[in-house]
Parts: sequence; C-alpha cells; structure tokens
Amino acid sequence: MAAILLDVDGVLHVSGEPIAGAADAVRRLRAEGHRLRFVTNSTIMSCRQLGDSLRAMCFALDDDELQTTGVVAARVLAGRRVLALTMPGILDDLDGLQLIGMNADAVLVGGCDEGEEPGRVFSYLNLNRAFLELEAGAELYCLHKNRWWQTADGPKLDSGAFVAGLEFASGIDATVLGKPSPEYFAAALEAIDADPELAWMIGDDVEGDVRGAQRHGMRTVLVRTGKFRPDEVEELGVVPDGIVSSLAQLPDWLEANL
Amino acid sequence: MAAILLDVDGVLHVSGEPIAGAADAVRRLRAEGHRLRFVTNSTIMSCRQLGDSLRAMCFALDDDELQTTGVVAARVLAGRRVLALTMPGILDDLDGLQLIGMNADAVLVGGCDEGEEPGRVFSYLNLNRAFLELEAGAELYCLHKNRWWQTADGPKLDSGAFVAGLEFASGIDATVLGKPSPEYFAAALEAIDADPELAWMIGDDVEGDVRGAQRHGMRTVLVRTGKFRPDEVEELGVVPDGIVSSLAQLPDWLEANL
Repeated sequence: MAAILLDVDGVLHVSGEPIAGAADAVRRLRAEGHRLRFVTNSTIMSCRQLGDSLRAMCFALDDDELQTTGVVAARVLAGRRVLALTMPGILDDLDGLQLIGMNADAVLVGGCDEGEEPGRVFSYLNLNRAFLELEAGAELYCLHKNRWWQTADGPKLDSGAFVAGLEFASGIDATVLGKPSPEYFAAALEAIDADPELAWMIGDDVEGDVRGAQRHGMRTVLVRTGKFRPDEVEELGVVPDGIVSSLAQLPDWLEANL
Repeated sequence: MAAILLDVDGVLHVSGEPIAGAADAVRRLRAEGHRLRFVTNSTIMSCRQLGDSLRAMCFALDDDELQTTGVVAARVLAGRRVLALTMPGILDDLDGLQLIGMNADAVLVGGCDEGEEPGRVFSYLNLNRAFLELEAGAELYCLHKNRWWQTADGPKLDSGAFVAGLEFASGIDATVLGKPSPEYFAAALEAIDADPELAWMIGDDVEGDVRGAQRHGMRTVLVRTGKFRPDEVEELGVVPDGIVSSLAQLPDWLEANL
C-alpha cells in the first residue's frame, strides 16, 4: 500500500467539471488501502469551500484530508502583520493573521481565479502598495508561483507573473508556500505519516507537481488532463515514473507498477 | 565642446515641477557650444506633447531634439501588428503601427503614469491577453524596463514589473527599446553626430542612465535629483565620472572637468 498525494485542479476537475472516472478512481484507491492526501495550489476557495465543492462533484473526501496553501500561509505567518493580495474566497483559511493595508511585516501574494477578481486583486494600486511595503522592509511570500493555469476556456495568466514582477521591482525573492516548495510536500507527507521514498505525487503540472515532488525524493505520475502539455514535458526534461491518460487510469497503473 | 545627452524626468523636472536652475543650465550649455539631445524613457506623452510641456516649464528646446521611446518603437515595429499596453498619451508617436487586439506579431509594453491609467493599461484582462499572444508566438518589446520611478509623492512601481511578469510567464525575453539599450544611445548620438567616447550622459538613474551609457562607452554625470538614491549607487557598484547636486551645477562642473 502506498501514500499518494493527489493534486486537485486539473487532476480531479477542470473549472469545476469533474474529470470522467476520477471520483471512482479515488474510491478505488481508498478501497485498495492507499493513504491519500489532496494537495492543491488552488487559491480560489478556502479549505472548507473546496471540500464542499469536491464532494458536490461526488469525490469522497473530508476537509482534513485537503491541504490548501491558505492554511499553510496561516501557519507560517501566524501573528504577523500581512498585506494580502489574495482572492476573498481564501480569507477563511487566513484566520489568525493580522491582515492590514500598510506597515506590513509581510506581503502575501495569492492566486488568480476565473472571475473578475484578478482585476481587483492585482490592480496597479494594490501592486504599487505591495511594492512600497517591500521597499520599506516587508518580506515577500506567495501561495504559489505558477505561470499559468488551465481553464475550460484555455490557459490563463496566473499569479506567478505578479510575484515575479514584484521580485524584479523590489529585488526581493519570494518564499513560495505551496508546491513545489519542499516544506509543502513535507507537511503533506507528515499528515499521512509517509516517507518520501514510499510516496507518490499525482499531478498535471510538470514543474509544480512532478519536478517538485521528485526533488523531494518522491515518485511521480503525470496525468494527461488539466494543464498537461506534451511539449512542456520534453522542454523541461522532466521524466515522471508514469504517465496516464487521466486519474481514472491510475488504479490499474499502480496495480501493474507498484 | 561636448555632445551631451540629457535625461528629462528627474533631471529637468519631477512630476512637472522644474528642477531649480535647470532651464538656465540648458541655456548656458547651449551658449557654450555643446550639442544637446534630450533622451527620455518617459512613456506618458508623445514627443510633441512632451516638447510643449518642457517649453511651458521654460526649457528652450525643439521637438526634434527630443528622443522618446515611442518614436523608437514606431521605427522598430513599423508595419507589424502590435498589441500595445501603453498610455494613451504616446499613441501619436506610434503612428504607423497596426495597433490591434489579437493575432499580434508583437506585444509592446509601455510605462505607467501617475494617474489612474496604469490600472486600466495593466489590468489583469490586458496582461492575460498579452500572455496569450506571447504563447501564440508574438515577440515581446518594452519601451523600458524600469523598476520604479520618482514622483512628487515618492517612488512608484514602474512598468518593468509587468514586463518581468510577462517574461516569467511566457519564458520570452523582452527587447528593451529605451535606455539602457545600446540601440537607443546609438540613435541619440547619431542624431547629433557624436562618438560615444566624446559624449556625456547626464541622468538620475544609476541603472538606466549611468550604467547603460558607460556600457556604450560614454562618460557620465549623475544628478542628485529625481530618483537618485545614495545607497543604490553603492549597491550597484556603478561609478559615474561625476556627481552633481542638480543640473544647475553641471555647466560649472563641465567647465572644471572637461
């Protein structure tokens, strides 16, 4: 039996549309005795909202099996004064932080969603405010540094672009809280009491999921759904242990290859 | 007699407020027979508007002595389909380009100004559109890649942050059309028929003005107005040939050091 970390966006669903057969695959993985944890860089919803949303898509999981970047941010930045450029949906997860508009100890950059919110969150006004806080000595954190994400309408610019822009302007490197940071994988494995060498990461993102987990000593399976792009796999020179059409094929693949 | 390139923003004025004694200094430099050219990364106004604005501040100069990045962009991108994220003020300079909203050959990123425009120009919607054009094969150009600029209210985030963000997301390096690109300095020197070794760059920007001009083989004087920051000079390890309090002191300094 293995410990398996499952990415959410692009692996279980795309833009709220479940991947065919994915919910059954999750059930079968559980029935076969694998320990599961759901690890996401998604920054649209709080842990509880995301749990509700996945259960509405017929995925069988509890909130405490879900690891969101907002919850990690709340732990890492506890007690500090934080200027947060994040979607309102994750504010529940940030409970316990002192969210303020100026004189911040840290700037926290969240992610984009598919609605109108990125326009408000990443307005020039907010980015300039973040820049001035960084110039005044605040540290820079981000929930993730993804370059783009896949939606039902195609790829969209993700918040990594705004993180990179603030890094460039301020000369300060951001600390990444979500995948592919080693701390994020370590926290997920600790929660299911697993060693990296015996654990699998299943994802659609070659950089964040596959390369990140490999660097953390884990084995990896890439799914051909979500943001999967054959040319990116080649360009980046990353070789996962397996590639499957979708999560629906994972139980059979593991049975044959474990 | 020398050939002298004068930066505009921060050297002649800050936020439309002329630097004390700068207009007289320009007159004296001319009277002493120096050949002048005004070279700016400013992206708020067209060449003609900027000329009018400087004359209203009592600077004696003609439009054809001014080199703006918009005019350079129009020459470099002539005849190509361009998605331009620029301030409306410079559209006059971009005359001759096919400015379009999709299927672009090139994405051109302009600069911020002090009004509400950056919020509209650098909206998530526009940046995402630019990202998708780059993904589809468009080239990336920028008028400059400045990190911040100095206003009467203090420093503000400049468009270099958005250029860096698009570079990060797309994996495409931007071609910089303004300072410190060698082509920009070369065009300015050619216009006044000067060799770099015998020419001076006068600016407030250690990276864009001083280091850029030094790399082009020119001599440099840094002014302590505009975006000048003593700590930045030290950090970057750039040593100009001279440092003066403001442009008002330049004629005397040149008389003593030429």
